[in-house]
Amino acid sequence: MEEESGSLPSKSDFSAWYNDVLWRAEIMDVRYPVKGLYVWYPFGFGLRRQTYAILRDLLDNSDHEETLFPLLIPKTEFMKEAEHIKGFEDEVYWVTHGGLSELDIPLALRPTSETSIYPMFALWVRSHADLPLKVYQIVNTFRYETKHTRPLIRLREITSFKEAHTAHATWDDAAAQVEIALSLYTRFYDDLCIPITISRRPDWDKFPGADYTMAVDALMPDGRTLQVGTVHHLGDHFSKTFEITYEDAEGQQQYVHQTCYGISERCIAATIGVHGDDKGLVLPPKVAPVQVVVIPIIMKKRADEVLAAAEVLKAELQDSGLRVKIDTRDMRPGAKYYHWEMHGVPLRVEVGPRDLDAGTVVAVTRDGEKTTVQRDEVVTAVPEILGAYAARLRTNAEEFLTSHITEAGSVEEAAEAVKTGIAVVHWCGDEACAEELEKATNGSVLGTEVRSEHITISEGPCAVCGRQGTSTVIARTY
Amino acid sequence: MEEESGSLPSKSDFSAWYNDVLWRAEIMDVRYPVKGLYVWYPFGFGLRRQTYAILRDLLDNSDHEETLFPLLIPKTEFMKEAEHIKGFEDEVYWVTHGGLSELDIPLALRPTSETSIYPMFALWVRSHADLPLKVYQIVNTFRYETKHTRPLIRLREITSFKEAHTAHATWDDAAAQVEIALSLYTRFYDDLCIPITISRRPDWDKFPGADYTMAVDALMPDGRTLQVGTVHHLGDHFSKTFEITYEDAEGQQQYVHQTCYGISERCIAATIGVHGDDKGLVLPPKVAPVQVVVIPIIMKKRADEVLAAAEVLKAELQDSGLRVKIDTRDMRPGAKYYHWEMHGVPLRVEVGPRDLDAGTVVAVTRDGEKTTVQRDEVVTAVPEILGAYAARLRTNAEEFLTSHITEAGSVEEAAEAVKTGIAVVHWCGDEACAEELEKATNGSVLGTEVRSEHITISEGPCAVCGRQGTSTVIARTY
Repeated sequence: MEEESGSLPSKSDFSAWYNDVLWRAEIMDVRYPVKGLYVWYPFGFGLRRQTYAILRDLLDNSDHEETLFPLLIPKTEFMKEAEHIKGFEDEVYWVTHGGLSELDIPLALRPTSETSIYPMFALWVRSHADLPLKVYQIVNTFRYETKHTRPLIRLREITSFKEAHTAHATWDDAAAQVEIALSLYTRFYDDLCIPITISRRPDWDKFPGADYTMAVDALMPDGRTLQVGTVHHLGDHFSKTFEITYEDAEGQQQYVHQTCYGISERCIAATIGVHGDDKGLVLPPKVAPVQVVVIPIIMKKRADEVLAAAEVLKAELQDSGLRVKIDTRDMRPGAKYYHWEMHGVPLRVEVGPRDLDAGTVVAVTRDGEKTTVQRDEVVTAVPEILGAYAARLRTNAEEFLTSHITEAGSVEEAAEAVKTGIAVVHWCGDEACAEELEKATNGSVLGTEVRSEHITISEGPCAVCGRQGTSTVIARTY
Repeated sequence: MEEESGSLPSKSDFSAWYNDVLWRAEIMDVRYPVKGLYVWYPFGFGLRRQTYAILRDLLDNSDHEETLFPLLIPKTEFMKEAEHIKGFEDEVYWVTHGGLSELDIPLALRPTSETSIYPMFALWVRSHADLPLKVYQIVNTFRYETKHTRPLIRLREITSFKEAHTAHATWDDAAAQVEIALSLYTRFYDDLCIPITISRRPDWDKFPGADYTMAVDALMPDGRTLQVGTVHHLGDHFSKTFEITYEDAEGQQQYVHQTCYGISERCIAATIGVHGDDKGLVLPPKVAPVQVVVIPIIMKKRADEVLAAAEVLKAELQDSGLRVKIDTRDMRPGAKYYHWEMHGVPLRVEVGPRDLDAGTVVAVTRDGEKTTVQRDEVVTAVPEILGAYAARLRTNAEEFLTSHITEAGSVEEAAEAVKTGIAVVHWCGDEACAEELEKATNGSVLGTEVRSEHITISEGPCAVCGRQGTSTVIARTY
């Protein structure tokens, strides 16, 4: 639907590259006439479908059940949990009118669904036999963002919020579920070939109404981190507010302990940001809406023969379970390559007259690895090529991450490191010292209890006050 | 999550039966604290998933592309098309506040998405090469219903609106697309084993802003029809309002001609209503979240052996592509049968000690057909049994429909027929005569150009005025 004119900015100018690649690769159209609301192009929606199918499978296969709760939350319910309101009151959209009349009770557009779901949990949970209860939904949620909005990253309508909500008999059971959620998210981002850093957010940065918040961060090309998932231990804050109790084995009423965890379309922003290059998107095979494009190389002679062979090849690859397109448009091959590279298609398979004679095809991955494959081995060779390609994406992303992590021994070193990436620094845990660190680095203290294959955690003197501390990570954030 | 206490009302008291079966079969929870908003239970959501997967496949395989447009529509865009506003002004929810401040421009929650999508179509369509454009989305839409609300049927949040929008070069191309859409919907309802009646709605009942509206109706057990799909030819009303033009082959700018067509979760209400019985849901195999339940018949002796055999059977059926559960709960078999019958599971397969000896299993369909199947033929026999079962559902539904259609020669006969079903009557096309018919029958004139395998269309004198007319259908509607 878009004409491809001009050229993509270099990825080194990440902000310009990102904005441009979104329309050139037909992910999002930003021209919708309300700030912070965007339109998914069909190709972008295809990427969303594949990405969320992985998330659904992970949840379905770990005893979560998909449900759907209403978008509109009556003000009376929304206002019940004090910390929660405080966290959201500046950013909730309110419906005040139905037709031409004013509503008796204003309705909030869910910014997140605790206050929509938990009144029902109070009805659903009766006895310990009902626990654990694990549900999820994939929904649109809303935030009245006053900051600069950005497609897939900072939105007024988060179109694709996957939120899971669980209830357990004990605090420890809920804590164990936090670990399960983190391991699911780790597997999810591994499928996206994105290395992540997990940490426990400082108390002042936890979810409003949580005991603690674990967060998942990805490193974007400009050295800023993007929070791409959160897992909250809610303790019994909400169960006390919404009276979610169960009868234990001794016949006593007990409050449940809860968790919730979410991932939004930021996971797609991370996929785009982490892997893309100066030619456009670079998509991991598991989420690419088109995994293989077959390009017939049409010369004057033998055009029909080549075209027929390309169609057979396409059908064979498709039957093997791959998502395949054939590009038979009347264009130069170079223009086709450009188009499919922009869209991040992992593998291009070319078939020309010479290939017919040789009984081969030429396979070129999005990162430029060229292989001549025997025609009768294509169906087994392609998945291997795609697997090796995915491994390279993962390695490249890990190399980028490790080369942008700096162990900083002082506030000054941390400030220098945060200019281009993540600083690892010792911190005593004190809020005043964190403020000092944040001011000096222009970054945020992401948290403690850091889990990353690429970061070694240690004890040492706080970079600010010198008292004993442990490693924390600091970065500029989205 | 629900205790199964008391018993389901007879389906002859349809309204009571419907309300009851929704929670007993865990489809919807109606206890959400806002009128007209309901919660999907996991089992109900499973039914939604299978149902909408069929719809998605039909659209994906007929050149439609899935997209996603914003929920919020600025008042300025919403108010552009005069007829359209008039049709919706009484039922639109308005967002007026973001956080603590009032918005400059109120935002409508989409009641339908023409005014959200068409400003973008104006940007997307440039030349005849961009046409036809066919997109769809599955979204939540909102109506401030002041009438009596009912789960899946009359809602304030329609959670599952599949709406397709197309743009074409000519009026005739758009008319052809209307026919394509009707054929897709016919296939869809055939998969649900629901016979439908298609008709062209009278002009006063067409979609606000349409040239004409074709509607799809199903007959519910109480003799009322449920509109379960609509297809609108929009002509160039919206393209003129939103300036959606293309350059034709001669270089002239032309307005596109458009269609839109939608199906909501009413399709699930129809599935429940048309097929259910006094024991609960009766689900067509294609949409049943659980297609087969395996019940080990555990006696004191050989319990382990039976259980192991049941697990193997379950795995085999699952590997063959079916959605299968095994019920190993410590309960009487009768209680299990009751549970799975309530949930409409098409086939129960029982394995007991005697079956092990005989090398057989007992298969019982939801409508009570019992077959003894050779154990080593189960995987081929089950799809056949399910196919025959689906055919019976279809036949039963058709018989119910045909036995509730009456050719009426007079207003009085029509009034009598409409008490229990559909009256077919000659009508001159005049609005005054339709009003007369509606008043006398307490029904609605559904429309003309009726398409149904079960209704013969003819010409004849209008039942009201005696002038020449053609067959129309009248029924009480939801």
